[in-house]
Amino acid sequence: MDVDVARARFGEARRVVLATNRLDGSVDLVPVTFALVDDTIFTLVDHKPKTTSHLQRLSNVRRDPNVTLLADRYHDADWSRLWWVRAKGIARIVDDGPERDGIAGVVASRYHQYHDNAPAGPAIVIAVREWKGWSAN
Amino acid sequence: MDVDVARARFGEARRVVLATNRLDGSVDLVPVTFALVDDTIFTLVDHKPKTTSHLQRLSNVRRDPNVTLLADRYHDADWSRLWWVRAKGIARIVDDGPERDGIAGVVASRYHQYHDNAPAGPAIVIAVREWKGWSAN
Repeated sequence: MDVDVARARFGEARRVVLATNRLDGSVDLVPVTFALVDDTIFTLVDHKPKTTSHLQRLSNVRRDPNVTLLADRYHDADWSRLWWVRAKGIARIVDDGPERDGIAGVVASRYHQYHDNAPAGPAIVIAVREWKGWSAN
Repeated sequence: MDVDVARARFGEARRVVLATNRLDGSVDLVPVTFALVDDTIFTLVDHKPKTTSHLQRLSNVRRDPNVTLLADRYHDADWSRLWWVRAKGIARIVDDGPERDGIAGVVASRYHQYHDNAPAGPAIVIAVREWKGWSAN
């Protein structure tokens, strides 16, 4: 799949899966809301209860900034419509301040649930270094 | 989320995301069809063209058997319906023979697309060591 097509399909996805590396060498996977601007992915810790998983995601990135994300379409009745796009990149965390607030605004604009209730947690900013995609046709 | 609920929800999913570790330390993510029996996940390389990604998945597992999988539900209009379940486990590959054929039959029984066209590639058998789940309510 062409890189421009891959980027565009990823950007239109509603939720993607974020993979981060845990200290013990295992991988944590979690679905996240996000926004894509050029080759930068923005995602935040939102209003859900601050479970271990949320803290884990942040501590994983602080220790190892290498992350991978996956957008995909699954359609049970018609496998000719399947595709996936994978992004590999380098993440950094923005805990607070105007940059975090700006990112929260960008992500919130994509989800009506956030309109009156923007994500309040730290932002994760991912500079994508590699796009890779596959499509059934 | 209770482990039994997590396992049951995962088992009913139609496609899950598989994370494997690449030699360079980065993570490969790919959506896969599968079947769950007790605490064992079965998935196979199927009939899609044997691209680098498919071979990569197998070579990653042969080198590092630690894998993570994620099942999740996303519903754009109603976030109270969101949940995810993560499985961490140890994978092994079954290249051919009766065990592979039996696994292909189990997985094929879940997908009508496979009924006359069972997956022909190697099987990946994952012994799950940890279930973890989150639900919006």
